[in-house]
Amino acid sequence: MAFINEHYLKLQSGYLFPEIARRVEAFSKANPEKAKRIIRCGIGDVTEPLPPAAIQAMHKAVDELSVRETFRGYPPPTGYPFLRDAIAKHDFHDYGLNIEADEIFVSDGSKGDCAAVLDILAFGNANKIGIPDPVYPVYVDTNVMAGHTGPIDANGSYEGLTYLPCLAANNFVPELPREKLQVIYLCYPNNPTGAMITREQLAAWVNYALEHDALILYDVAYQAYLQETHLPRSIYEIEGARRCAMEFHSFSKNGGFTGVRCGYTVCPKDLTGTTQSGQRVPLHGLWTRRWSTKSNGVSYPVQRAAEALYSPAGRQQVKALVDHYMGNAKILREGCEAIGLKAYGGVNAPYVWVACPEGVSSWQMFDRMLEDANVVITPGSGFGRYGEDYFRISAFNSRENVEEVVNRLKSMTLQAV
Amino acid sequence: MAFINEHYLKLQSGYLFPEIARRVEAFSKANPEKAKRIIRCGIGDVTEPLPPAAIQAMHKAVDELSVRETFRGYPPPTGYPFLRDAIAKHDFHDYGLNIEADEIFVSDGSKGDCAAVLDILAFGNANKIGIPDPVYPVYVDTNVMAGHTGPIDANGSYEGLTYLPCLAANNFVPELPREKLQVIYLCYPNNPTGAMITREQLAAWVNYALEHDALILYDVAYQAYLQETHLPRSIYEIEGARRCAMEFHSFSKNGGFTGVRCGYTVCPKDLTGTTQSGQRVPLHGLWTRRWSTKSNGVSYPVQRAAEALYSPAGRQQVKALVDHYMGNAKILREGCEAIGLKAYGGVNAPYVWVACPEGVSSWQMFDRMLEDANVVITPGSGFGRYGEDYFRISAFNSRENVEEVVNRLKSMTLQAV
Repeated sequence: MAFINEHYLKLQSGYLFPEIARRVEAFSKANPEKAKRIIRCGIGDVTEPLPPAAIQAMHKAVDELSVRETFRGYPPPTGYPFLRDAIAKHDFHDYGLNIEADEIFVSDGSKGDCAAVLDILAFGNANKIGIPDPVYPVYVDTNVMAGHTGPIDANGSYEGLTYLPCLAANNFVPELPREKLQVIYLCYPNNPTGAMITREQLAAWVNYALEHDALILYDVAYQAYLQETHLPRSIYEIEGARRCAMEFHSFSKNGGFTGVRCGYTVCPKDLTGTTQSGQRVPLHGLWTRRWSTKSNGVSYPVQRAAEALYSPAGRQQVKALVDHYMGNAKILREGCEAIGLKAYGGVNAPYVWVACPEGVSSWQMFDRMLEDANVVITPGSGFGRYGEDYFRISAFNSRENVEEVVNRLKSMTLQAV
Repeated sequence: MAFINEHYLKLQSGYLFPEIARRVEAFSKANPEKAKRIIRCGIGDVTEPLPPAAIQAMHKAVDELSVRETFRGYPPPTGYPFLRDAIAKHDFHDYGLNIEADEIFVSDGSKGDCAAVLDILAFGNANKIGIPDPVYPVYVDTNVMAGHTGPIDANGSYEGLTYLPCLAANNFVPELPREKLQVIYLCYPNNPTGAMITREQLAAWVNYALEHDALILYDVAYQAYLQETHLPRSIYEIEGARRCAMEFHSFSKNGGFTGVRCGYTVCPKDLTGTTQSGQRVPLHGLWTRRWSTKSNGVSYPVQRAAEALYSPAGRQQVKALVDHYMGNAKILREGCEAIGLKAYGGVNAPYVWVACPEGVSSWQMFDRMLEDANVVITPGSGFGRYGEDYFRISAFNSRENVEEVVNRLKSMTLQAV
């Protein structure tokens, strides 16, 4: 029989969110009445309808596909020019950043991009990989699948990865490592901690990368939630980043596209990797080849919907969505603080990162929140060992639900603390 | 700097279709008047509008996303039950085949699936891979990228792959190999040759796979074009195939979804691979893990559109599309034969596979067709060394264009032969 990719066997039993879904389902089956009260603040999935501008654009695009004269078949594998141009203008040129349309690669979502980038990097342990902890689990799991790690240890850490602790003590921004890393993941505004990085801190990372000839994979899926505008919204605001960083963008959280599926990566032409023998190779060519060989591009109506988010109406509608979720974040953070829990984030990101009461593990907290408050949160340990003492509450919800969550927390806290 | 995946450097200069696009663009720039006459029968991209059933379903789904009560966020990573159920019923149960909904994995297209399947197989040269020649280039290129091959030779063949010649002499169905292969690609109705496999031939391959413990990756992207209904439309019609085959399906060519993007794979629960130490591992679990970790699923309106292809109206509309293209195929095949060219395919597939005139290479034929007839075809050598003496004409076009192509061929043939 065919030999399998044995690295998959190193993975833990389930990806975090399916595991949560399994526990919620089990609880619901056992408690059908309480199941009706469940409020989901676990997975970071949006709840509000799509912006009208996106809806209109999709309808129009669908109509185009219904007529021979305007029908479109295979899209360009890296995205339609209309969308790449809109992105370059509104996300970069308008902010004075020199990222060109042909450095933008449109995809069906940022999760896939985070996985796909490993396709163009060396297999095995050639690259020393730095991963924040806690972290979006996809970074870790895709590295395991690609064979970049050894087995998992008792703490849930994989041998061979360099974990970069993100703690309250460092404001959830990792210290520069002493060793030489080749690839580093960073995500700001951060999932799961809701933290933000300062310009000085980001510049220090860029300098580290330039000095050590490393590649930064910079995830800005939550860019739209940044409120403190003196903080960097793109790594390309930092001098030299074009030579050391790819940036990962998503339309899931600004335009509410979790069900529509669109994102993009930035791969500057100045960015190079190296062969084992030291030959410099531009990543832009490899990334183009990856997409043109492995993908036929993104659905046309989806690309039109993404383009519409950049229209004047679309931008206002996105802002209204962001304001809504950030209003929720404020209520959740203050609600947690009001009952004596230490809460972080929720200022530049739609996540509130809450310290568990003393002596309560994060999965225990998950179960307690589910059983007592019928609220689904995400246990911090699902994001890494340094998440163990925390849980994440997502602000993606209706205002009504968020207020109800805070009310339920109040009645719960006496038992919990 | 980060170490790159050096296997990419083994790839030829460009994936076939971008190379064709480049030549057409160069010709068009040099000959702006002739450029207006160009008829594209190269890439297998559909030309007719989407079936009305799919259009209606997409509009309805988009409207659902515009209202909070019916809004949907992240889809299930392997597809919505409504679509998996429709597929299981209409593509399998209605034909008496026991494939269940949870063995169906919905994706954004078959090209991606062909690439993704290598994620769950061992890297390097653990598996001996059998690839038909000529063949859809994606099978080859993705194996190169995954490190399953050595360098390319002067014939355009990669060291380490086992090429399975598909010739007029064997009706474009490869002989069973004498050596033991672990993974075998087959595609029927075939792209590029338009050939079909008999039930006996397919049974022989299944028996080979069972006997040698091999995995067959069976591509049925062109299933809808099968006219001779005594021939097998699915590998699961063959006893034992659930233990040795995955099947790859596309909505690109039946529903005209090349720009909408949807496909699916079948991974039966009986199917296993093995570790190096001989442990049997169900591929279903690995494949599920691959999708839940690397993807957030397919756009909701797209999945609704795919579902609509199975409605009574949708099925009639698909049939009308297929009839249209197969009418084109007949005209093209007969047109080629009328000018003395030997033509294959076009009976159970929308491709006609035409022998080049004596002494004319397939890229020469490409250039001549472009320059003299202003018709874009696909040179056979783009599909492998055994495609060298052929070219492919695609039937995906309007009737008017197809008739015009045949007219132009007539005036061209005197010079060509």
